[in-house]
Amino acid sequence: MTVLVQKFGGSSLGSTERIRAVASRVIESKLKHQDIVVVVSAMGDTTDDLIKLAREVSDHPSPREYDALISTGENIAAALVAMAIEAQGVPAVSLTGPQAGIYTENLYSKAKITKVDPSRIMSELDAGKVVVVTGFQGINDLNDVTTIGRGGSDTSAVVLAATLGAPVCEIYTDVDGVYTTDPRIVPEACKLEEISYDEMLELASLGAKVLHPRSVECAKENRVQIHVRSSFKPDTGTIVKEDSQMEVNRPVTGATLNEEEALITIQKLQDRPGVAGQVFTRLAESSINVDMIIQSAEEDQVNDITFTVHQNDLKAATLISQEVARDLGAKAVKFDESIAKVSIVGVGMISKPGIAAKMFRVLAENSINIKLISTSEIKISCAIDQKDARRALRLLHHAFELDKH
Amino acid sequence: MTVLVQKFGGSSLGSTERIRAVASRVIESKLKHQDIVVVVSAMGDTTDDLIKLAREVSDHPSPREYDALISTGENIAAALVAMAIEAQGVPAVSLTGPQAGIYTENLYSKAKITKVDPSRIMSELDAGKVVVVTGFQGINDLNDVTTIGRGGSDTSAVVLAATLGAPVCEIYTDVDGVYTTDPRIVPEACKLEEISYDEMLELASLGAKVLHPRSVECAKENRVQIHVRSSFKPDTGTIVKEDSQMEVNRPVTGATLNEEEALITIQKLQDRPGVAGQVFTRLAESSINVDMIIQSAEEDQVNDITFTVHQNDLKAATLISQEVARDLGAKAVKFDESIAKVSIVGVGMISKPGIAAKMFRVLAENSINIKLISTSEIKISCAIDQKDARRALRLLHHAFELDKH
Repeated sequence: MTVLVQKFGGSSLGSTERIRAVASRVIESKLKHQDIVVVVSAMGDTTDDLIKLAREVSDHPSPREYDALISTGENIAAALVAMAIEAQGVPAVSLTGPQAGIYTENLYSKAKITKVDPSRIMSELDAGKVVVVTGFQGINDLNDVTTIGRGGSDTSAVVLAATLGAPVCEIYTDVDGVYTTDPRIVPEACKLEEISYDEMLELASLGAKVLHPRSVECAKENRVQIHVRSSFKPDTGTIVKEDSQMEVNRPVTGATLNEEEALITIQKLQDRPGVAGQVFTRLAESSINVDMIIQSAEEDQVNDITFTVHQNDLKAATLISQEVARDLGAKAVKFDESIAKVSIVGVGMISKPGIAAKMFRVLAENSINIKLISTSEIKISCAIDQKDARRALRLLHHAFELDKH
Repeated sequence: MTVLVQKFGGSSLGSTERIRAVASRVIESKLKHQDIVVVVSAMGDTTDDLIKLAREVSDHPSPREYDALISTGENIAAALVAMAIEAQGVPAVSLTGPQAGIYTENLYSKAKITKVDPSRIMSELDAGKVVVVTGFQGINDLNDVTTIGRGGSDTSAVVLAATLGAPVCEIYTDVDGVYTTDPRIVPEACKLEEISYDEMLELASLGAKVLHPRSVECAKENRVQIHVRSSFKPDTGTIVKEDSQMEVNRPVTGATLNEEEALITIQKLQDRPGVAGQVFTRLAESSINVDMIIQSAEEDQVNDITFTVHQNDLKAATLISQEVARDLGAKAVKFDESIAKVSIVGVGMISKPGIAAKMFRVLAENSINIKLISTSEIKISCAIDQKDARRALRLLHHAFELDKH
């Protein structure tokens, strides 16, 4: 029998009323004669409440204890979902990450899943039960509970789907699918029926918060389709799958915006080998994520290096840049604290020339100044002034006919 | 090195502030060069909150899921206590029942502990850590979490003390020891320095809520001394230990009251063999606990059977008694819904005659009518009218000089 994996996030489990609704939804699927594995996050704000408790007893809780603590949120949700399914007459069993055989590295808080022993899950499915598994957690070889970091429950669900040979992993969330852009900014945004893994990866890491990139990567690697859909509406959502399986007849699939960027320029650095390496090594040592990077040769032997960071990191990044500038004899460090990054994404742009040119032209025609450009095979991003950000997104969404999906 | 087991109950862990105070207390003991194993209950009302959630999703949650759910309360407390100890500079580690090697029967909600494999606890102690273990839970041979029922965390603590060869198990609670009677009713009640296991068992099962009888039985069996003491005051509390270890120079050690009893009489039952058996078998089948039982021969071949039950069980017990009365041709069923049981307890009464007579005389002289009497070697109980209950307790406490301890 085909296994279907269904993952429900915290907002879908925000109250016992919602948990009962989730149970009904699961049973509906079960009645279609499928073996069902349900993966759950913690209810609503449970994880935040637990983190608050931890902070009240310790400034720096050890990662091991932190994981032991916050993983209880998923345990609670899993037991309640199993109870709610049983209350509606269908046999169910909850399994913790350790019980479900989800093994991870010996790291805490951000362990990677190393293997899954599905024997317990299989035997519970064989006994006719809906199996409810805690997302976000596993066990390491010290026999301690670990959590697997951001995007954890989505990743747990995809890994289980891959292990159990489930062709589809349904991710239930508070939106009803993946949109061409953020509908709160562009009301004409359209729900996509399908999107490729690579496009989803670019959109996710660019700020579309529907799926964590890690779960998408994992799905791509294991050829598991992800079906993103609403917990609250019965409609079909968006299928994330291999791009070879769909016709690519649109150059651009989605547009996205990161509004909280800041830009730093180190001016007139001596162009010696290793200079850029020094700058970004020191930033990495302070755990500062650098996003776009541009190096421009202004004149012989002297370069400007410009890059963007999250606004929260601007102060630290500026201090480090000033140190580096002093050490390397650069002229000055300039920064701009209100930058946004607008991007268009689509596998179709590989085979269709002129997409970048059109993007730059649309922005220019509307007097939006481009400060930085970076491109990948399926994405073009421009750093612009934050004040122009939402207008730029709407203009590009319209120009690339994303409202006509 | 000697191991000390310290158990902290829910009220001792009612807030993160209290958890930090518990951590300080544990560290104080640790600095006396002892290996410390801390056993914790769930924080404050956590267990009740979890039970409420369960009821909201299911009228009859399966015991397995119920245990999976409510055991998370102890997990949260254990991780927080370990964090709080580490925050004060002492290495600590939290272990769940399964991690601590606490194995139980395959029952849920009231499993008995069958064995403890202390290897993980020992290796963490050897590494110099304070080991914080969740009370109230274990693992069965299906690899599922079980809870061990009422008095669970106290019992967990005593079992661990026995397994680890700890001579003393400290039970921290919101009272500062065991008293000669309930100080809320008799302000002259005295704290006992010592009490025997058997006396504590009689007091506990008679309603003194300090220690669950199960943990006392377990301590008696394994020759572990229990030290009952306050979480909030540094004073020495009460040591529960073998009576041979102390001089018995008082006939009565404590007096106690059960105020929520009800009395049922089945009148004029034919005195045939097996009649009493039928009555109490049917009550037991409905899970009704019967406390005192008296059978009195009124005339040839006809008996009255009188017994007490908890007031909550009165309705069900009366219905069953009426059925039995009909089936067996008894005359009538009478009941009294407001009975109290007042008892005096002491190992000394074995060797000192006249204690029972004195008790009856004290009650009679004060116009308190005795409805039923039952006795054990170290206890005498009288069922009386509820309206006389507290007065009776005060009179007996004074008459047996319990205020002069």
